[in-house]
Amino acid sequence: MSQPPKFVVIGGVAAGPKVASKIIRLMPEADVTVVEKDEFLSYAGCGLPYYISGVVKEQKELMSTPVGVVRDPVFFQKVKNVHVMNRTEAMEIDRSAKRVRIRNLADGQESWLDYDKLMLATGASPVVPPIPNVKLDNIFSLHGVDDAEGIKALLAENKAKDVVIVGGGLIGVEVTEAMAQRGCRVTIVEMLPQSLGMMDWELARLAEQHMESHGVKVMTSTKVEAFEGDGKVSAVVTDKGTLPADMVVMAIGVRPNVGLAKDAGLDIGETGAIKVDDHMCTSDPDIYAGGDCVESVDLVTGKSCYVPLGSTANKHGRVAAVNICGGDDRFPGVLGSTVCKVFDYCVARTGLTETDAREAGYDVVSVLAPAPDKAHFMPDAKPLLLKLVVDAKTRKLLGAQATGPGVGDRRVDIVAMGITAGMTVDQLANVDICYAPPFSPAMDNIITAANVARNKLDGLMVGVSPMEVHQMQANGKDFVFLDVRSPGEYEQVRLAGSTHIPLGALRGRLDELPKGKEVIAFCKISLRGYEAALILKAAGFENVRVMDGGIVMWPYEKQQ
Amino acid sequence: MSQPPKFVVIGGVAAGPKVASKIIRLMPEADVTVVEKDEFLSYAGCGLPYYISGVVKEQKELMSTPVGVVRDPVFFQKVKNVHVMNRTEAMEIDRSAKRVRIRNLADGQESWLDYDKLMLATGASPVVPPIPNVKLDNIFSLHGVDDAEGIKALLAENKAKDVVIVGGGLIGVEVTEAMAQRGCRVTIVEMLPQSLGMMDWELARLAEQHMESHGVKVMTSTKVEAFEGDGKVSAVVTDKGTLPADMVVMAIGVRPNVGLAKDAGLDIGETGAIKVDDHMCTSDPDIYAGGDCVESVDLVTGKSCYVPLGSTANKHGRVAAVNICGGDDRFPGVLGSTVCKVFDYCVARTGLTETDAREAGYDVVSVLAPAPDKAHFMPDAKPLLLKLVVDAKTRKLLGAQATGPGVGDRRVDIVAMGITAGMTVDQLANVDICYAPPFSPAMDNIITAANVARNKLDGLMVGVSPMEVHQMQANGKDFVFLDVRSPGEYEQVRLAGSTHIPLGALRGRLDELPKGKEVIAFCKISLRGYEAALILKAAGFENVRVMDGGIVMWPYEKQQ
Repeated sequence: MSQPPKFVVIGGVAAGPKVASKIIRLMPEADVTVVEKDEFLSYAGCGLPYYISGVVKEQKELMSTPVGVVRDPVFFQKVKNVHVMNRTEAMEIDRSAKRVRIRNLADGQESWLDYDKLMLATGASPVVPPIPNVKLDNIFSLHGVDDAEGIKALLAENKAKDVVIVGGGLIGVEVTEAMAQRGCRVTIVEMLPQSLGMMDWELARLAEQHMESHGVKVMTSTKVEAFEGDGKVSAVVTDKGTLPADMVVMAIGVRPNVGLAKDAGLDIGETGAIKVDDHMCTSDPDIYAGGDCVESVDLVTGKSCYVPLGSTANKHGRVAAVNICGGDDRFPGVLGSTVCKVFDYCVARTGLTETDAREAGYDVVSVLAPAPDKAHFMPDAKPLLLKLVVDAKTRKLLGAQATGPGVGDRRVDIVAMGITAGMTVDQLANVDICYAPPFSPAMDNIITAANVARNKLDGLMVGVSPMEVHQMQANGKDFVFLDVRSPGEYEQVRLAGSTHIPLGALRGRLDELPKGKEVIAFCKISLRGYEAALILKAAGFENVRVMDGGIVMWPYEKQQ
Repeated sequence: MSQPPKFVVIGGVAAGPKVASKIIRLMPEADVTVVEKDEFLSYAGCGLPYYISGVVKEQKELMSTPVGVVRDPVFFQKVKNVHVMNRTEAMEIDRSAKRVRIRNLADGQESWLDYDKLMLATGASPVVPPIPNVKLDNIFSLHGVDDAEGIKALLAENKAKDVVIVGGGLIGVEVTEAMAQRGCRVTIVEMLPQSLGMMDWELARLAEQHMESHGVKVMTSTKVEAFEGDGKVSAVVTDKGTLPADMVVMAIGVRPNVGLAKDAGLDIGETGAIKVDDHMCTSDPDIYAGGDCVESVDLVTGKSCYVPLGSTANKHGRVAAVNICGGDDRFPGVLGSTVCKVFDYCVARTGLTETDAREAGYDVVSVLAPAPDKAHFMPDAKPLLLKLVVDAKTRKLLGAQATGPGVGDRRVDIVAMGITAGMTVDQLANVDICYAPPFSPAMDNIITAANVARNKLDGLMVGVSPMEVHQMQANGKDFVFLDVRSPGEYEQVRLAGSTHIPLGALRGRLDELPKGKEVIAFCKISLRGYEAALILKAAGFENVRVMDGGIVMWPYEKQQ
């Protein structure tokens, strides 16, 4: 070979370093250059909330390998044989000449880099909306290491008592926990009717209640109208009142960095991110792209979607590198699988929410299945609140969500695998997953959820969501709201308007219930509620439903 | 309907109560009777080790519902409408007259129970081999509540200092932990060359080392020849010496209880358990069977296998009930998925081990992939040692194993789903599973394992197992055993006979390595070992392999 092939990678975080490292492994003679605008590269952006909270002690841990070597340009050169130009901005792609104009940000010098193949890993930037005074001091985004340092400095000076987080998505919630752990009074202001928009409302509401139990104020359906302050922010003006604020973190989302790609005339997708095929190739066969700057295919709906995540970026990088080096690998798409730590809760999801699925036109059966995450007699068993969403027509899995202190990610990942494989809920019900009391119940939570879904699909159980029951109560509808828990459980906590007959006594007290009225049965988790409904139906009650998830998943007020 | 259908269930634990409850849900008018030999029914047998250790405080917790109601005959009658006859033994099945002869163990009275459909859930019994003096006092099995009470009584009297566990399988290891936690000196005596026979040797060895670090003595390839004692056991005679013993627990496995079925002329499978079709129906269309008394189909090999587990028993029960009631449900088979807590380790597996797979005739690629189970900068990240077994011909997943303090069950379950779906390792590499630093690395351990397997399948990496390297050393083979970790890591711990050149210095020190000899490269986990091999190959070294799993998974002595 006369001249080694030249590969240029724009972007030094996640997909960028991954593609560069993998190219060198596949083609050790290649000439690979990574161009990165910032000082820092290859840092774990997802770790920033934990650096702010103090769980991660040193900034350099976020940019080190697992054995503690900092991934700086010297590391990349010596270990990976990759040339890194940091503090260097890519200004323009000249596609016909196959070269990139770059500017050294230290001295302003410009030059051209030739490429045989180019990789765009330009990432995303936080959305900063045009709210009056959004440029005041102490209003941060949380995107890079500098943002985290700014926030930490203010916290260290003890100058941030009242913190307002604008946006209750993943990052907003992670920062909320970090700030609360640092002793701040935190308020989340979210424009939509719920935080954690990737979840259905009732699961998000349980996470909100958990945040509230840690002193966080969650204001949903609330719009930020302006910031106030003299140099530094002092208050956030919303349509529901003005909040004092020593610090504000804007976390309303990110937008893909597509300027370079757009200017070069590459196709941009309908989501606003760079369009790539399943080989991670853009509309120019010599230009690949991956990470937070590209859109993906939703594996359930087949539609384009924008789900920027570090896990996906790494996969993009590997697939792109294989194809850049002449191989043939494909990235099939995403399910939007996510997990988020919310204080002591694990909040996780994959596939479509019930809301998503209905909007996409599916006939949906959904299940709320709360249960201990381990054998119930193990003292460290913790509640896990699962939701499973199934296509009623094909019985295929569409999505799963988990909220609670129990292990949710494992169950959600099981469903993610099932969706990927096109499995039905019947197949899920009989999968052979691991069981032992310290790890799961004999009937794992997800198996139970699958069986409840099958009962509904087969017409054995008619469910009703807590939201519908709540609405029926609000509308003054006349029905029997039948609690079949034990007297001891009833004494501890009750739902307003309920009639109490323990399940064991039900067969003997059927005449206390009016036969003409609808009965909505429930218990703690609605397994006994289901059995009650079966007893009632066998006794001739015609209009009987079971409240999904029972009292555990009732997202409204309870009587204690 | 003139007469409700009569269903008889023999066996009151796991599959038995499950089939009875589900029948009543499907057919509330049915007449269901459960016959159980013991006093106790529907108890969580898998919880017994945790009752012995004291983690579970009260016996009744093991036989209660999640809300604390004891599942006794009164509970079954009132809540489930199931008639339970405990302390009653099924003596004979009269298939032509469709009736079961039963004996009341309290008064010895016999009678006949008619059935329309019969369910056998007769379970399994511990194997008690004909070792001299095996009937001495204080030699226990751990099968029922009585066994656990006997063991606990002895522990409470502080009369069991030296405990010998005969058999190092799942139950043996769980009991070992329980006894060690109660302050006993515990020795495991296992006839085979390894404990935890469901794992490959090197993964089992890591678990054994962990037990040893908790003071347990693990004697493998050791045969028990006799017990000694005067009334009570006092010593265990093995072919490797005599061990003092105040208590012995026999845990060499269970055998399915097939006497009734055999006497009735039902087909018994080649494993010795009752043969059933995928509807859980025996060779008699009116007799179903499930739980520990039946054999299953191995989903990978398609062959019969015997894997008695509580999780499977519950699924059997549901499937059998649906079919008994005229529905159509099928149980597809098992993967032998298991998880076991071994002190602070999670030991989990699914599908075929490498040994199994080779014996079954597969051309196998296997991977040892150790890594932190969470983002490495999170302080609670723990090591997880994964093994992935792949069919080299089809690239399909065959099995996975995990050992270590990290979260192994989640990764093993992901592979269990992948095997069930017939996924290739290439599909696994790009699945969208949950990611956030408190839960996983950005490239999840199982994704990394899949990518290493792909590298091997594609000829990019030639692996060598630590066992083969160890054997090469023992045989005095001449090769360069190249450790490319950092000087700091090398100082902490080393392998005998290794040459140390840090990866970052390797390109500049290539002339120190002899070109003719084989090089086996490794690092902590062998990612840098892989990069070193690529550098060496690019520099003209022809015979380079990477030691699977690196120093972390070296199951032999290390120099410290």
